[in-house]
Amino acid sequence: MTTIRLHSYFRSSTSVRVRVALALKGLGYDYVAWNLRADEHRSRSYLDINAQGFVPALEMDGLVLTQSLPIIEYLDERFPETPLLPADSAGRARVRSLAAMVASDLHPLNNLRVLRHLESQYGADQASQAAWFRHWTRATLDPLEAVLAQSEHVGRFCHGDQPGLADICLFAQMLNNRRFGVDESAWPTLARIHKACCDLSAFDSARPERQVDAVHR
Amino acid sequence: MTTIRLHSYFRSSTSVRVRVALALKGLGYDYVAWNLRADEHRSRSYLDINAQGFVPALEMDGLVLTQSLPIIEYLDERFPETPLLPADSAGRARVRSLAAMVASDLHPLNNLRVLRHLESQYGADQASQAAWFRHWTRATLDPLEAVLAQSEHVGRFCHGDQPGLADICLFAQMLNNRRFGVDESAWPTLARIHKACCDLSAFDSARPERQVDAVHR
Repeated sequence: MTTIRLHSYFRSSTSVRVRVALALKGLGYDYVAWNLRADEHRSRSYLDINAQGFVPALEMDGLVLTQSLPIIEYLDERFPETPLLPADSAGRARVRSLAAMVASDLHPLNNLRVLRHLESQYGADQASQAAWFRHWTRATLDPLEAVLAQSEHVGRFCHGDQPGLADICLFAQMLNNRRFGVDESAWPTLARIHKACCDLSAFDSARPERQVDAVHR
Repeated sequence: MTTIRLHSYFRSSTSVRVRVALALKGLGYDYVAWNLRADEHRSRSYLDINAQGFVPALEMDGLVLTQSLPIIEYLDERFPETPLLPADSAGRARVRSLAAMVASDLHPLNNLRVLRHLESQYGADQASQAAWFRHWTRATLDPLEAVLAQSEHVGRFCHGDQPGLADICLFAQMLNNRRFGVDESAWPTLARIHKACCDLSAFDSARPERQVDAVHR
């Protein structure tokens, strides 16, 4: 068995995704914490691991893997038991598209560096940043709810009755939403699937507050 | 041979990506134009195709595929000749990560809906929007240049001597950069790879100005 080392920050949404994937695969790993609030990810020692300065990064098989979705695709190819993507191309396209809605259209607009930039460039205060967060969250989760509510492929999870890549992205996003007071009442399907995720220990173990570097406040 | 229908807008960066992939695969398709400047993508008739209201969408095999990278992954699985991803898992992870840097960390921050929102929420004028665009472009392309400049895997293109998913994302982004007056002098490797893409007819044919709905001004 290869040694796996995860570079992570407890609250990072993209780190949550990879932690869930590792847990669903039953893979143990060394946890290396980088404090984003203290800009440790901008340090020379971290930039030598990932020039982009983002967590997560995953070291295994002599590789340094970056970007949460490509990392999860790699894990799924490397450890095909408990698949996180469907076996058929149409199903894979569907799950990847649902995941991309969150990972490409929603999350990048709402992460810490963007909120900080809004503050420095436009003087956006906490309330304005929260409004920005809610705006882009609704812009994606409204159509995501519509897509899932009418899909024949939805089961207990986004695609059938086993959790996968789309659920992982949704779960991490929904955790973030609660920090920004997003009203979830318009998304009953998303809330139901999120609840199904929360009921699984693999998802629960990946929560920010379960990590060794969690700051409780 | 299946009939392929591409829902597109000439200037859409994500549409450019799919057009390049189709051209690299040698696949013909029907082009259905939606005018984003006239909000046609928000019309009922388009939302019935893609509830998210984004182009591109690709109809084939009785499916409606959405999200450019999942669409390209589907095309690559369906038509494995002229692969757009490497044959090995490590190579795929690398190419997907390079693509995600552009597709998840850069482009979502700089598209039309975000620039419009900056204007409506913070009164950002054209100059301020362009500064925003340049800021996030540099934030990703600086480390992308660093990663590629030191990589043993780089050849004529991002991964070896054949174009693939990472080149597709880079090409579309570089076209956008020129519209916003981004200084590319700090990215010689990216410029070299972009030039190699421009020299191929598959990339050239996907340019905005080559499309039937192109508006020249």
